[in-house]
Amino acid sequence: MAKIPTKIYLSEEELPKCWYNLRADMEKLPPMLNPVTKEPCTKEELEQIFCKGCVEQELNDTDRFIPIPDEVREFYKMYRPSPLVRAYWLEKALGTPAEIYYKSEGNNTSGSHKLNSAVAQAYYAKQEGLTSLTTETGAGQWGTALSMACAFYGLDLTVFMVKVSSEQKPHRREVMRTYGANVIPSPSETTEVGRKILERHPGTGGSLGCAISEAVEKAKSTPNCRYGLGSVLNHVLLHQSVIGLEAQTALNKYGVTPDIIIGCAGGGSNLGGLIAPFMGEKLRGERDYRFIAVEPKSCPSLTRGSYVYDFGDTGNITPLMKMYTLGHDFIPSSSHSGGLRYHGMNTVISDLYDKGYMEATSVEQTKVFEAAKLFARTEGILPAPESSHAIRVAIDEALKCKESGEKKVILFGLTGTGYFDLVAYKKFNDGEMGDYIPTDEEIQASLAKLK
Amino acid sequence: MAKIPTKIYLSEEELPKCWYNLRADMEKLPPMLNPVTKEPCTKEELEQIFCKGCVEQELNDTDRFIPIPDEVREFYKMYRPSPLVRAYWLEKALGTPAEIYYKSEGNNTSGSHKLNSAVAQAYYAKQEGLTSLTTETGAGQWGTALSMACAFYGLDLTVFMVKVSSEQKPHRREVMRTYGANVIPSPSETTEVGRKILERHPGTGGSLGCAISEAVEKAKSTPNCRYGLGSVLNHVLLHQSVIGLEAQTALNKYGVTPDIIIGCAGGGSNLGGLIAPFMGEKLRGERDYRFIAVEPKSCPSLTRGSYVYDFGDTGNITPLMKMYTLGHDFIPSSSHSGGLRYHGMNTVISDLYDKGYMEATSVEQTKVFEAAKLFARTEGILPAPESSHAIRVAIDEALKCKESGEKKVILFGLTGTGYFDLVAYKKFNDGEMGDYIPTDEEIQASLAKLK
Repeated sequence: MAKIPTKIYLSEEELPKCWYNLRADMEKLPPMLNPVTKEPCTKEELEQIFCKGCVEQELNDTDRFIPIPDEVREFYKMYRPSPLVRAYWLEKALGTPAEIYYKSEGNNTSGSHKLNSAVAQAYYAKQEGLTSLTTETGAGQWGTALSMACAFYGLDLTVFMVKVSSEQKPHRREVMRTYGANVIPSPSETTEVGRKILERHPGTGGSLGCAISEAVEKAKSTPNCRYGLGSVLNHVLLHQSVIGLEAQTALNKYGVTPDIIIGCAGGGSNLGGLIAPFMGEKLRGERDYRFIAVEPKSCPSLTRGSYVYDFGDTGNITPLMKMYTLGHDFIPSSSHSGGLRYHGMNTVISDLYDKGYMEATSVEQTKVFEAAKLFARTEGILPAPESSHAIRVAIDEALKCKESGEKKVILFGLTGTGYFDLVAYKKFNDGEMGDYIPTDEEIQASLAKLK
Repeated sequence: MAKIPTKIYLSEEELPKCWYNLRADMEKLPPMLNPVTKEPCTKEELEQIFCKGCVEQELNDTDRFIPIPDEVREFYKMYRPSPLVRAYWLEKALGTPAEIYYKSEGNNTSGSHKLNSAVAQAYYAKQEGLTSLTTETGAGQWGTALSMACAFYGLDLTVFMVKVSSEQKPHRREVMRTYGANVIPSPSETTEVGRKILERHPGTGGSLGCAISEAVEKAKSTPNCRYGLGSVLNHVLLHQSVIGLEAQTALNKYGVTPDIIIGCAGGGSNLGGLIAPFMGEKLRGERDYRFIAVEPKSCPSLTRGSYVYDFGDTGNITPLMKMYTLGHDFIPSSSHSGGLRYHGMNTVISDLYDKGYMEATSVEQTKVFEAAKLFARTEGILPAPESSHAIRVAIDEALKCKESGEKKVILFGLTGTGYFDLVAYKKFNDGEMGDYIPTDEEIQASLAKLK
C-alpha cells in the first residue's frame, strides 16, 4: 500500500546520545528571580529545592548538546525509541492530500512522555546520594512516571496528588502505589502549608498550586530529599528533547520534511521537546517550519495571557519566571485535560511565541473529543485528552489542505493514551460534556493581582 | 550493555503473510458434535452461528499455512509486529543466569492479544456482506478488541457484558462505547434466554456462559448478523499464531532458541498462538522444547479437570467439544483474572496436553500478583493479571536456573497490560487479596453432571 511503513521504529543504537539544549541557539532568556530579593536565582538557592544535576541543566544556556548518562539511556531502552507513526487511516478518513505523522509517546506504563524527564531526575537524585524525592501530580501522568523511575532507582517518593484528582482517579493512584509511592491527597495535614489551607478552606478539593507548595515544603524539611517538577522548567524541556530528536532522525531516514509541527501546550515540556531540534534549524536560519502550540480554550495562557514575571505556584514560594501567564491565582475550569490546566508557560516557549517564531491557538473541549474519537477509530489508539488538542489542530490543518489541494506534511505529538480518562470519554459519549471559556473580566481580574 | 537489543522489533515486511495451522501437523482431533444428534457438526450448522470465513478455518485441519488477507495485514500494521523483549532488568533483579524473553502483546488500545483475532473475524464478516456481529465479554479485553475491529470495518456490534464486570469495570465499557459498540449488561431483558435467567435468578450478576447464550440468540435472531468468539475455538488459535510466528522470526534473527515456552491458559488462544510454530517443530521431530501452560488454582481445567465432551457455555446451546473441562456448571471464584475464568480448554491444547507434548501447572493469585509487581518495577510495564500467571512461572523457572547454574532460555507470552485491573492491584497493595482453591468435592460434583 505504501512505501513508508506505518510505524517508523529507530533501533536502540539510534536513540539520541545527547539531549539538545535549544537555549544555546536562542538569545539569553530573562532569568528566574528570587521572589524576595528580585535578583536572579543563584545555583545555591535552586539546589535547596532541586537536585544538583537538574539545577546545572536548568542554568545551562550555552551547551547545545548535553550527554544523556548511559544509565538513563539504558532505562530509555525499556520504552524508547518511541514510534513515529504515519496516520494513513486518519488521512484516508479525512480524504486529505496532506501527510500526517505523529510521534507516539504513550507506549509505557506512565502512559505519556513524562517518563523521559522522570528517569533523568531520579537518576541524578540517586547519583547525588539523595534517598527520596517529592512531587505533586494533577492528572496523574507525572506522578506515575516519577513513581516508576523512583522504584527503579530505589528512591522513596511522596506524591501530593490534588485531592479531587485522587478521588476521581483512584486507578492512577493505585499505579503509583504499586510502584511504591506514598500518595497523599492534597491539601493534607502533613505540611504546614496544607494545614493552613485546610483551615482557611475546609473541604477544598485542592489545586496544583497547593500541591506544589506542599511538595516543596516536604522536600525542604526532609533530609536527603529534593523536589522534582514534571514540566514548565527548562531542564524538563531539555530531557523532552529526545522526542524531537528521534522524530527528526526518523523523518530524515525517509526523506520527509514537515511543514507544520503541532503540540499541545500545558506547562510546555512536550511541546518544547517535540519542536526543539526543528526550532533550532529555524533559529539558525537553516530551514523554516510552522509551529503551532495548542491550548485549551479554558486555560489560554499564550493566546490570552500576559508576558510578565509570575510565580510558578499559587502559594508564591517558587522563583519568579517571565512567562505567558493568566496569573497564579487563575483557577482554570475543571476541564478533562488536567495536564493542560496550568496558569503559566515555560519561558523558552513564551519567548519564542513572543518573538513570533511560533503560533498559538486554543480549542474547545468538545471539539477536542470529537477529534479524539475519530482518531481512536481510525488509528486504533485511544488518545489522552491533552494529546487530542494537537490531534484537533492537525485534523483542521489537514482539512485546509483538502480545500486548497496542498500536500503538506504535518507532524504532531501524541503525548499519551487516554486509558485513565474514561470518565471524560463517558461524559462525551453521553453528550454531557460542556465547554468553558473564561470571560475577559475573569482573566483581567486574575492578571491585575500581578501588578 | 548487551549485544541483543532490549526490544526486538521486526519490520512491517516481516509480519507473517500466513497464519500457521498447527492441526495440519497433528493427528485428527475429535470433532465438534451437534448436541442433539451427537453427530459431527456440519459446516452449514456452524454457519448459522459464525461467519463463513471463520467456519472454513475452524474445520480446516489439513492446510499448514493459511494466507492472511492483505486487508487484515494492513490493520495488523497499526500495532504489529509486536516487540519481543529481553527482560534484562528482571534477570538482573533475580540474579539468574537464565535469559528471559517475552512477547509483548499489550501495546494496543484493546490492551491484549485479542485484537489479532477480532480484526480477522470482523474482516470476514464485512466481506460476506454481514452488517453486524454480537459477542460476549467478561474481563472486557475481547469486547474492546472486537469493538475496535467493528468500528474500523463499519459493522454494528452488540456486546453482552457480564453484569458484574460491567458494574466493576465501567471504564472498559466506556472504551467499547467510544468505539461505537452497544454494550448490554447480561443477563438482560433483550433476549429470551436472558429474561428466563432473570426470572429464575432475579438480581444475578451474570456469568460468561449466560452472556454467550444471549449473544448467540441475538445473532441468530438478527438479519445479516453472526456471533464472534474470542477464544476456545480453533480459528481463534489460528489467528493468534501470529504471536508465535513473529516470536520465532525475532529469536531466529538473533540466533536464540528457547528451552522453555510459557503461556497463561484460559480458553487457550494466547497459549496456542504463542506455542504453535514451536510445537509444530516438536511434532515434526525437528527440535524439542518444554511447553508450560499456566492456569489459576481457582480454575484448573487442565490440571484437575477431565478430558471429555462438554458444552462451551452454561446454557448448553453451543456444540459439544472434547476438552479438558471442570464441567460447564463449574463457577470459578471471582478471581481477578477474568480472562482465565473459563471451565474448559481449547481442543488443540487439550489434545497436546493429553498426549504429553506439554506440561501444565497452576498458581495462586497472590503469588501471581507478587510476580506482577516485581515485573512492573523492573521491566516498566504493569502487566495484566492473566499474563502475570506466565510471569510467575517464568520467574520460578529462572530461579531454578539460579540454583542449578543452568543458562536456560525462557520465552513467555505477556498477553496484555493491567491498566483496567487496578481494583485488583489495590486489593493486593492493601494486603486484602485472598486465594481460592476449589475442593475435590466441588470439582467432582460439577463433573458428575456431565455423565
